[in-house]
Amino acid sequence: MTKSDTLCINTIRLLSADAVQKANSGHPGMPMGAAAMAFTLWTKYLKYDPSAPDWTARDRFVLSAGHGSMLLYSLLHLTGYDLSLDDLKDFRQLDSKTPGHPEYHLTPGVETTTGPLGQGFANGVGFAIAQKYLSAVYDRPGYEIFNYNIYGIVSDGDLMEGISSEAASLAGHLKLGNIIYLYDDNHISIEGNTEITFTEDTSKRFEAFGWQVIEISDGNDIEKISRALKSAKEEKSKPTLIKVRTEIAFGSPNKINTASAHGSPLGADELRLTKTALGFDPDKDFFIPEEALKVFKDAGDKGKKEKSEWDKLFAGYSKEYPKEAEEINSLLKGNFKEGWEKSFPVFSPEDGAMATRSASGKTLNAIAEYFPQLIGGSADLEPSNDTFLKKYKSFQPGSYEGRNLHFGVREHAMGAILNGITLTNPLIAYSGTFLIFSEYMRAPIRLAAIMGIRPVYVFTHDSIALGEDGTTHQPIEQLISLRSIPNITVIRPADANETSEAWKTALSIKSGPVALILTRQKLPVLDRKKLASADNLSKGAYILSESKGKPDIIIIATGSEVHLALDVQSDLLKESISARVVSMPSWELFEKQSEAYKESVLPAKMRKRVSIEAGSSLGWHKYVTDEGMVIGIDKFGKSAPGDIIMKEYGFDKDQIKIKIKNHFKL
Amino acid sequence: MTKSDTLCINTIRLLSADAVQKANSGHPGMPMGAAAMAFTLWTKYLKYDPSAPDWTARDRFVLSAGHGSMLLYSLLHLTGYDLSLDDLKDFRQLDSKTPGHPEYHLTPGVETTTGPLGQGFANGVGFAIAQKYLSAVYDRPGYEIFNYNIYGIVSDGDLMEGISSEAASLAGHLKLGNIIYLYDDNHISIEGNTEITFTEDTSKRFEAFGWQVIEISDGNDIEKISRALKSAKEEKSKPTLIKVRTEIAFGSPNKINTASAHGSPLGADELRLTKTALGFDPDKDFFIPEEALKVFKDAGDKGKKEKSEWDKLFAGYSKEYPKEAEEINSLLKGNFKEGWEKSFPVFSPEDGAMATRSASGKTLNAIAEYFPQLIGGSADLEPSNDTFLKKYKSFQPGSYEGRNLHFGVREHAMGAILNGITLTNPLIAYSGTFLIFSEYMRAPIRLAAIMGIRPVYVFTHDSIALGEDGTTHQPIEQLISLRSIPNITVIRPADANETSEAWKTALSIKSGPVALILTRQKLPVLDRKKLASADNLSKGAYILSESKGKPDIIIIATGSEVHLALDVQSDLLKESISARVVSMPSWELFEKQSEAYKESVLPAKMRKRVSIEAGSSLGWHKYVTDEGMVIGIDKFGKSAPGDIIMKEYGFDKDQIKIKIKNHFKL
Repeated sequence: MTKSDTLCINTIRLLSADAVQKANSGHPGMPMGAAAMAFTLWTKYLKYDPSAPDWTARDRFVLSAGHGSMLLYSLLHLTGYDLSLDDLKDFRQLDSKTPGHPEYHLTPGVETTTGPLGQGFANGVGFAIAQKYLSAVYDRPGYEIFNYNIYGIVSDGDLMEGISSEAASLAGHLKLGNIIYLYDDNHISIEGNTEITFTEDTSKRFEAFGWQVIEISDGNDIEKISRALKSAKEEKSKPTLIKVRTEIAFGSPNKINTASAHGSPLGADELRLTKTALGFDPDKDFFIPEEALKVFKDAGDKGKKEKSEWDKLFAGYSKEYPKEAEEINSLLKGNFKEGWEKSFPVFSPEDGAMATRSASGKTLNAIAEYFPQLIGGSADLEPSNDTFLKKYKSFQPGSYEGRNLHFGVREHAMGAILNGITLTNPLIAYSGTFLIFSEYMRAPIRLAAIMGIRPVYVFTHDSIALGEDGTTHQPIEQLISLRSIPNITVIRPADANETSEAWKTALSIKSGPVALILTRQKLPVLDRKKLASADNLSKGAYILSESKGKPDIIIIATGSEVHLALDVQSDLLKESISARVVSMPSWELFEKQSEAYKESVLPAKMRKRVSIEAGSSLGWHKYVTDEGMVIGIDKFGKSAPGDIIMKEYGFDKDQIKIKIKNHFKL
Repeated sequence: MTKSDTLCINTIRLLSADAVQKANSGHPGMPMGAAAMAFTLWTKYLKYDPSAPDWTARDRFVLSAGHGSMLLYSLLHLTGYDLSLDDLKDFRQLDSKTPGHPEYHLTPGVETTTGPLGQGFANGVGFAIAQKYLSAVYDRPGYEIFNYNIYGIVSDGDLMEGISSEAASLAGHLKLGNIIYLYDDNHISIEGNTEITFTEDTSKRFEAFGWQVIEISDGNDIEKISRALKSAKEEKSKPTLIKVRTEIAFGSPNKINTASAHGSPLGADELRLTKTALGFDPDKDFFIPEEALKVFKDAGDKGKKEKSEWDKLFAGYSKEYPKEAEEINSLLKGNFKEGWEKSFPVFSPEDGAMATRSASGKTLNAIAEYFPQLIGGSADLEPSNDTFLKKYKSFQPGSYEGRNLHFGVREHAMGAILNGITLTNPLIAYSGTFLIFSEYMRAPIRLAAIMGIRPVYVFTHDSIALGEDGTTHQPIEQLISLRSIPNITVIRPADANETSEAWKTALSIKSGPVALILTRQKLPVLDRKKLASADNLSKGAYILSESKGKPDIIIIATGSEVHLALDVQSDLLKESISARVVSMPSWELFEKQSEAYKESVLPAKMRKRVSIEAGSSLGWHKYVTDEGMVIGIDKFGKSAPGDIIMKEYGFDKDQIKIKIKNHFKL
């Protein structure tokens, strides 16, 4: 290690420690311990252009240990990204570009939002799948347009989280040689030495997953780190984990290797001692030696050159492969292929009863060729979720152009991998599982919503009507708990045509994830000649069937319960009670409509309202008003055939009719 | 394998396939493939008394692959549990004792509810921790009262789920030699051969976790399976995974080794062919040969003998160690130690401002000696969650009497391990993590609620007020999404005394989990001389501070926002506006009160109500009525110091006062 190297590494350490100290909040230990590996990666290997953070062919860097955010911010500033020293001084302050954990879209160069442990690790697997797919589909001999790698720094916490095992197992299976993770093995977690709970042989575990593992016993040995990174780049058929034994808070005389340096500032005195120990002036804060700055800027400049070389490569590609280049350019702008609007199927009652999961499968297959950016798959429930694109291959080693992913029984990783894929412009990823197993992927769904990215979740088997699988598989509170996530759109279509429209709407929403909630059981295709058009779905709620004359009541329903609502409407009419039926596939879409539209569907004065949804009653009160009635389920389900359990829980037209008449004294 | 063995194994296979066929729903393949290993375990190793399914010292059997429920039901029936042949014929029917997936409390002999994959695997680790703890605390030389093992059958799906990696890593670290899992390695999952997504070296992975792994290449080789089980019992310091290569739907001529046998009945014709192939009469359904029945009944009878020997052992123990025996008996009845009611601390304003997480820590430490059945810990956030019992050791190899668990950064496994511990009478387990990471443990929380068992979750850092950690760490929708789970009790105490009362209430709730929602930030200790007593917490909501004269409005608040409500009350009074302040720590507890009590707190005629809670507004509408106002947060948080972000999001008394005056035109 040269003196210059040491200076650069210590600059990272102290910038990070200074920012944490100034904020009086944050995690100094990790950046100080991992500074040497980060320096090596960012000055010698990582491909990036600080002036073009969205460059398509850049390497992706994931700081899975998001609490070490100051490490990343220091690097971004030093290498010349649009992140000033003042931004660093604003660490963890309101509306700064340097929040406590790295946030996508807030800070140039931050590829994904991390913090909840394990998520970044699995995001990286998504990035890697995206690279392999784009490369397989668009690269041509002599034109490796999508030639880049995915780097990350991961921590013991990341590796303890189960999601990283799921993602690593899949990455090994898929032979994702484009993944290179540095494992910051500092033996310290918040409760103390990792000896108290984490004594497994991580190298052996990752070898079992099919990874190349390289061990480095000294976290400051940048020659060895560099050689390891080189070996990792050369290994094309295995992901690589470089396990680097580091010391948390390296440089701090009294806090090195202590848990106290994990999540608290060093303290003013200790920080002075640290600066002195590292040969810096203890009186200077946020000090960046000229010599060090030059090294980092040179690294950034090297990246600029690589970017302009790539631009030339892409220009050549555009000449030789104009169709492909045009498609890439169009997709990167967020376009779909011409004719996409008309690709969505229209169903008719003559098609016969059809589960909305089946309608979803038909829709997906009908639109697939118009959406080359759409890839996805299921967590081992593809035949049940109807998510397979029949004209396309499976994504496997040897067929990375395949659009069908087999996630295995790994819902949590699936969610985070979707995020990594969808963060890769121009791709949009979709998943498949039962609605109940949305519970396993809450954290990545929330992160998609935070980031404002647009994966699509296919959640089938959406209520107790799924039947015999019983209590453990029957969703009750899943709808409301998904709806409660800010910035998500939940859509529960009522029939095949609403399902087709739901997909159209989902793919039109550019910011924030969409959850499609679909039935296992067959439902009639509603006769749109007699009823309102299904394209009203995009408004979230609409008058599906108006009452004869002025309505006595409004029945609001979603999904499969819309059919019940229509039956009840019809039976009530026989008793001269007029009901309006509102199909309400999406609360979020409805809330976005004008007040005038909302008033037209649910007039303030018409307060005799009833909602019907085979799920938790929570939240419906708002739509039915104090006078209304919520028909929902606030207990767990039971194992029984679907029609029997629905009746048992009150979801049949006769019971509902009686409830309505009693409640409203009709 | 003798002819009798074969007959017994085929009896299990066909009973299972018959029941699935009759239900026309279910998973026949797994029971048919795993029948031989299950037979070996249940007739030669597993210690159980069918007439005493709650016997304290029984071995625990976990069918983690819960979809193979008919395997378990067949065994329970054959060995003599209270589960009739008619019950088997009632498989998957309404209110039967044989639901689609095994459910605790519904069927004698079912130790835990399984189905969502990976959960049973981790429950078993909880069972194992419980055994080690009880044994360490109560066993005496010559009296191994709590000497039993934890057996399980796990599937490829279980091993793909990340939760099993988390749990296995911890089990290896803790040297839980009492765990013996049979891995039903049939190479088939729903999407086809596991080759498409699951090609890791599972044996090597488990060795990396510190497990003993034994591989068996033929799933019908019961001699080898038996020897492996023997070796596993002899290995006292490592959990054991016996990886058995099986064939799904063994016996079915056309469906063996096919994915179609995973989740669908064989079909009437194929079932007839199967019976013929296995030497049974194709015309007989649910047929149990006498000879086979005798073998199973003998196994059950052997267990009865073991139970009566244990009874004698315990009688001897009771003579020699009367104090311990009395304690065990008392605890098993669900009692706490004398004086427990008075062990809960009372705080006074003079104690100074105190975060509710700190009050929780003080409470836990004050009550610990009165609740020897209470053990727990945190997912590597113990210093932040304040969950350490200072007078007690950590639970580690060599100190299994320790009451402090170090779960590591493994929230999902923590949740499921809590279930396993709490399913072990008399234990009650508690966990610790940030509220936001409840997202990682949704599935086991739901299962605790389904089972009606009583773990306690300590969730700290309960709102945006946690400050700088920012968006990824700030809960918004977590309160409502926890409240939406049926059979859970969520308690968000307002100060130290409500926190002490919250623990008392939590430990008094015998059925269903309790989530304690606690602040990071300090809060004043409310002056109970001037305000209503904190023991009103058990009612869920109470008038904390009555208005001067008839109230103009009611302010309902929870947790830290109660202090804001009191400030607003005080400021409004200066403008001659009278407000009642209701502290509402728990919706669920309030809903359980009489209508009269509810009316006394929130009179139907007093409809000018406002709720204040720094979380999602969803669900509050019901309590504030159509006329009221919900003050909540329906967007994500931001990184900034806690007091600044609270103000930014409208949570200060002046902004709230203005909102109230505007809304109610006061």
